[in-house]
Amino acid sequence: MRTINVGLIGAGFMGKAHSLAYAAMPMFFWPAPAVPHRKIICDVTEEAAAEGAQRYGFDESTADWKRVVEHPDVEVVDIATPNNMHAEIAQAAAAAGKHIICEKPLARTAEEARTMYEAVRDAGVVNMVAFNYRRTPAVALAKRYIDEGAIGELISFRGTYLQDWSADPESPLSWRFQREIAGSGALGDIGTHVVDLARYLVGEISGVNAMLKTWVPERPLSAGGADQLGTGRSAGDAPRGPVDVDDELITMLRFSNGAIGSLEATRNGHGRNNFLTFELHGTEGSIVFNYERRDELQVCFASDGNDRKGFRTVYTGAPHPYGEALWPIPALGIGYGETKIVECHDLFQAITTQQAVSPDFGDGYQIARISDAIVESSETESWISVPPLDATPERG
Amino acid sequence: MRTINVGLIGAGFMGKAHSLAYAAMPMFFWPAPAVPHRKIICDVTEEAAAEGAQRYGFDESTADWKRVVEHPDVEVVDIATPNNMHAEIAQAAAAAGKHIICEKPLARTAEEARTMYEAVRDAGVVNMVAFNYRRTPAVALAKRYIDEGAIGELISFRGTYLQDWSADPESPLSWRFQREIAGSGALGDIGTHVVDLARYLVGEISGVNAMLKTWVPERPLSAGGADQLGTGRSAGDAPRGPVDVDDELITMLRFSNGAIGSLEATRNGHGRNNFLTFELHGTEGSIVFNYERRDELQVCFASDGNDRKGFRTVYTGAPHPYGEALWPIPALGIGYGETKIVECHDLFQAITTQQAVSPDFGDGYQIARISDAIVESSETESWISVPPLDATPERG
Amino acid sequence: MRTINVGLIGAGFMGKAHSLAYAAMPMFFWPAPAVPHRKIICDVTEEAAAEGAQRYGFDESTADWKRVVEHPDVEVVDIATPNNMHAEIAQAAAAAGKHIICEKPLARTAEEARTMYEAVRDAGVVNMVAFNYRRTPAVALAKRYIDEGAIGELISFRGTYLQDWSADPESPLSWRFQREIAGSGALGDIGTHVVDLARYLVGEISGVNAMLKTWVPERPLSAGGADQLGTGRSAGDAPRGPVDVDDELITMLRFSNGAIGSLEATRNGHGRNNFLTFELHGTEGSIVFNYERRDELQVCFASDGNDRKGFRTVYTGAPHPYGEALWPIPALGIGYGETKIVECHDLFQAITTQQAVSPDFGDGYQIARISDAIVESSETESWISVPPLDATPERG
Amino acid sequence: MRTINVGLIGAGFMGKAHSLAYAAMPMFFWPAPAVPHRKIICDVTEEAAAEGAQRYGFDESTADWKRVVEHPDVEVVDIATPNNMHAEIAQAAAAAGKHIICEKPLARTAEEARTMYEAVRDAGVVNMVAFNYRRTPAVALAKRYIDEGAIGELISFRGTYLQDWSADPESPLSWRFQREIAGSGALGDIGTHVVDLARYLVGEISGVNAMLKTWVPERPLSAGGADQLGTGRSAGDAPRGPVDVDDELITMLRFSNGAIGSLEATRNGHGRNNFLTFELHGTEGSIVFNYERRDELQVCFASDGNDRKGFRTVYTGAPHPYGEALWPIPALGIGYGETKIVECHDLFQAITTQQAVSPDFGDGYQIARISDAIVESSETESWISVPPLDATPERG
Repeated sequence: MRTINVGLIGAGFMGKAHSLAYAAMPMFFWPAPAVPHRKIICDVTEEAAAEGAQRYGFDESTADWKRVVEHPDVEVVDIATPNNMHAEIAQAAAAAGKHIICEKPLARTAEEARTMYEAVRDAGVVNMVAFNYRRTPAVALAKRYIDEGAIGELISFRGTYLQDWSADPESPLSWRFQREIAGSGALGDIGTHVVDLARYLVGEISGVNAMLKTWVPERPLSAGGADQLGTGRSAGDAPRGPVDVDDELITMLRFSNGAIGSLEATRNGHGRNNFLTFELHGTEGSIVFNYERRDELQVCFASDGNDRKGFRTVYTGAPHPYGEALWPIPALGIGYGETKIVECHDLFQAITTQQAVSPDFGDGYQIARISDAIVESSETESWISVPPLDATPERG
Repeated sequence: MRTINVGLIGAGFMGKAHSLAYAAMPMFFWPAPAVPHRKIICDVTEEAAAEGAQRYGFDESTADWKRVVEHPDVEVVDIATPNNMHAEIAQAAAAAGKHIICEKPLARTAEEARTMYEAVRDAGVVNMVAFNYRRTPAVALAKRYIDEGAIGELISFRGTYLQDWSADPESPLSWRFQREIAGSGALGDIGTHVVDLARYLVGEISGVNAMLKTWVPERPLSAGGADQLGTGRSAGDAPRGPVDVDDELITMLRFSNGAIGSLEATRNGHGRNNFLTFELHGTEGSIVFNYERRDELQVCFASDGNDRKGFRTVYTGAPHPYGEALWPIPALGIGYGETKIVECHDLFQAITTQQAVSPDFGDGYQIARISDAIVESSETESWISVPPLDATPERG
Repeated sequence: MRTINVGLIGAGFMGKAHSLAYAAMPMFFWPAPAVPHRKIICDVTEEAAAEGAQRYGFDESTADWKRVVEHPDVEVVDIATPNNMHAEIAQAAAAAGKHIICEKPLARTAEEARTMYEAVRDAGVVNMVAFNYRRTPAVALAKRYIDEGAIGELISFRGTYLQDWSADPESPLSWRFQREIAGSGALGDIGTHVVDLARYLVGEISGVNAMLKTWVPERPLSAGGADQLGTGRSAGDAPRGPVDVDDELITMLRFSNGAIGSLEATRNGHGRNNFLTFELHGTEGSIVFNYERRDELQVCFASDGNDRKGFRTVYTGAPHPYGEALWPIPALGIGYGETKIVECHDLFQAITTQQAVSPDFGDGYQIARISDAIVESSETESWISVPPLDATPERG
Repeated sequence: MRTINVGLIGAGFMGKAHSLAYAAMPMFFWPAPAVPHRKIICDVTEEAAAEGAQRYGFDESTADWKRVVEHPDVEVVDIATPNNMHAEIAQAAAAAGKHIICEKPLARTAEEARTMYEAVRDAGVVNMVAFNYRRTPAVALAKRYIDEGAIGELISFRGTYLQDWSADPESPLSWRFQREIAGSGALGDIGTHVVDLARYLVGEISGVNAMLKTWVPERPLSAGGADQLGTGRSAGDAPRGPVDVDDELITMLRFSNGAIGSLEATRNGHGRNNFLTFELHGTEGSIVFNYERRDELQVCFASDGNDRKGFRTVYTGAPHPYGEALWPIPALGIGYGETKIVECHDLFQAITTQQAVSPDFGDGYQIARISDAIVESSETESWISVPPLDATPERG
């Protein structure tokens, strides 16, 4: 069995999740398409990188991402950095002929994403953007039902991604609140996951009409600003900086196939944690999903008898997508790691079979164009059309 | 205790619900503001009306609604007819000095609603429009929490009303699919309930941006068209007529106080029955409601300890709105009837105390203006502003 | 249409619920088997009874229950008193040839229930005991599925009835905590509802093995004992009296058909309100019900495809039991009142058709025998057999 | 950082789960107590073991478990075999001075478990039995609330573990249906998990009163017996063997501290997958958990205001047990793997700190005694007392 060396850039939360996937993928998918080997890891300092290597099981470490990209043994470059570094790294990796997996969103803007898309296209390397949620078994089961025609022709989609970690105005001004680094706020961070699911399940999005809102216009520069000891001292004393990205987003959607939809994303919804949901109506049935209860898919078939029609709660397991590879009994428990393990499998299978994998940088680029359209729509208060990827001038 | 005579026009489902409320209201609210007496009922034929009188406990019956309006003993006229008859009856009742409760939506168009609003205003009669869902105890509890500031300043609202009874393209072309009678489709029938809740809980809606869709463009003229016997004969043989109202509606909302929102309504969502829901985010908490589980309100308080924060499922009972009047233990069971019993109580209290009651025809008129704006927005593909009621030219 | 006069004894919560049913039944079931007329109501004082008559719409009132039983115009006597009065009233009513509906539990002990059972049997009057929850449409739908064989042969049943209104040790010593009046505690008050459902759905119970617990051994003699003003004064100062009934009950069950089961009931479960649930396993499927969400029945069919098997959430409506009579759309809302309206219908149908109705006093007597066996089992710490009703010596 | 070598016996589903934990533990818990190194793996044949080594990342492989136990570099022996091999391996490993983690149930009988318990006690090695579910963060949060007194004094516990994978009578006669190998059926396989949770959360179990049932008395000797091709040929033609273990179990529980409880376990409940639940009532609150929705804990505090009391759905994350180590946001997703990763951490911490870890073989032995008492209770139809571990003769 072939071993494929990976170079990972970024040893934060995402670095952890990806490292887990490299270690565990062959345990779940066997025979594996290839065995990932954790070759080199990069983080912001040599010390952090060395610690990352020990913690996540890499042979080498560095504080210079170029060493990863140029490493002769590395076949796959994994970009798990803040958004503002994606493009430069990806272009260098593509130029070096490396296969690439990049965390989402692909880039801060469509223009930036376009350069990445063109770079991998021209280099002919396998490329993937890490919208992992579509690899939740229940989501893949929804896709299967749709493809089988089990719920008929799709007519409407409503997706949400609601969190609450930024609802506290004293939570500090991390990079996720800064346009220069993040590109956008809830839109890029979580809204794009819903866009990915919408395109995966329903089809291409042809137009958007949106509102973006920033509820907390400035935040403490560091966590220390908050009165975490309960002394009564006003937290307002801490130095603050401006938030120049969106906290919340509502958009209407038009799909090329005539379906309509909506998407709502916020990081300011108290009580919501990772409330990534969708509800799909078709002419012959409906599907409902909530990632917070990700072992389950709800599906209603119009063909069920009138006296026994209703949403079925299907717990995914062996008879469902990835089920043979994962756990033997439904509800033993799909976690976040499993979505990344499946993602890793599909990437490695694409590499070994030299086939395309989805979502790729083309998808990532198109999602960036939809994101830009959402921003433009909010600013112009109007519908913005989004042409399909292969109809765009730059690809002519 | 004063007895107040009621004349009811319309002996269908709504006539049943209202009759139940008249009979039961004093059993629940005691001492009652007044005892409703079922004086006269009107339906489309003398026979139907006579049967309605016997079934619903009215003294007299008629097929001529004018007899109800002109009846010297009747103090309250109850309009439970299809939408196209609301205006004429209401104007006549107001002219006759009767108090009026009218089923929703108030009228087919804002212009029609305006005539009704002005008629009751000029006549000085108590007037109410039967958006009953805000009288669900859990909804009133949401209002109480909001008014107490328990969830802070409201920032976003998302409301849905999803049903599936028209998803079957063979369900017949009832009056609810005809603009001439209904005014609109899902919008007026169920979407206006969400508009009422949004205004009740959040505040005035200042702008809308909407999409309307008709998924089933024509329907059998009668139920017989469908192959209900399973003979295999194509249902398509039945004569069909055009549907000229909306099946589904998505709109974004702007509120005068700066909050944003969305509203989605459909009668084509397989598996959804009476899925009237809202999710409200405030700066200090969130509230979630689903009428299909109407004994419950979910509320999350930001002030709860970090290690024990989450949505509480509060079952409404004695400590909550209307709780002393309804059932002694939470979850004994709030049904549709209870919402109408509370509505009846509030109407009769308004009559005996000569005070306003909400929602009144002013609310109904404003909701009709919002509905018209939603239609216009969908046609023009743009935001449409809705001025507040007291800022409109016709009231200058 | 025939009118049947009712005499109601007890103007408390149950009197209210029954009065609602008499007023509303023909509105829902039409043509009605007969029209109930509220003739006379009895309560503890003349004043209370007179107020009850006005509130609940009765012609006459009295403080002497014998006047009800002997009233020449009364055909149906409705016993809605505390448990200790059931037997004497029922025997007098039977002797007077009246049909009888009696609130549950039928009596304080099996011996007392036997006298009632024999009285109505000998008198030949229609008799019913008001275990209303089996008339929830979703419960009746469960019964229909079972009778159709849709879940195969039943193998196990687990039922609960959990409430929390007595969890507060300062809640006062009402009659429900006194054996002399109530007979038992959670057992008779709520546990018997589960026994009724178990017998209705699964079949006869042949043996029990139980534990009974009293968690709060004494309570304040009146509500004033509690420090409800938050002054800090100890509530323990209030005079207290002993609780001599059970607060909680766990029992295992054996059914005559070989199925096994469990039953748990408590009034001390914080957060549970009217948590009447059951889970039924059959060889071909399962059924789950929770009265707190009573519009829904969950059913799983083994015959569903492996990749789409799961509990369906069926919202009851027109295609389900009582559906044509109740509300036209599922989830419009079944409340407590509806269960009593259906109960009233079935009673009146039994009277007009001269047929038996279930649960009758025979069922109430058998449930009392099971209750006595539960108490004996707890005391002797052993299995206690319960012979079927027609096998008992006293009936030989 | 110290590296500790592991020898794993059993390369099935449990071998996979444990291998994942060894690979991932330091990624989550950092600094880790020690880094597990996968030294040697054993399976039934050399080929299977070699494949296991490659798949799960072990240096060496063998078909002889004694080689693992005697391996000079191995510090930890991990027993993931069918139940009948636990005792012999554990005794050998203890004799060799190895630390041991053993899958549950510890043994087929209490007597067998006693030998294991005494072996590790005498050898002084760290020992753990893999009742992993108590390491679900939500379960550990329940324990924290209880220990803090947040729900007062515990009065009742109801636990279930319901699955449906053996509901199909054509599912083959695997070792889990054979007493010689498994010891018992649903009791040992899943019921013991509930016993572990009950003891962990509530306290020692002092008595049981149970029913055991075998619903499917014989099964096909291999999966081929079933008509999986849908040819209509009777599956009954396949050779069958007897099932001599329980399919289902109901037991009442008495706790040493006066609390009462029930436990129900089945593998024949259609629609249930991994329905491991408990409901705990205390004098000041309640806790409810369902592993199928394991990111959530429901807790109700009596001290909440009367108008806002209800079960809170707390999604576990950083502020909760293991939260810093696992994922940064609640509901990102706890899966089965995470419970094993936490288990691995706690084992390794015990080894490096030379402290006890729970549940250990003493717990496993006591659970086996409770299991034996459950069987005896079912056979004798009576309460069976279970003395605490340190009160037993053999430990005197």
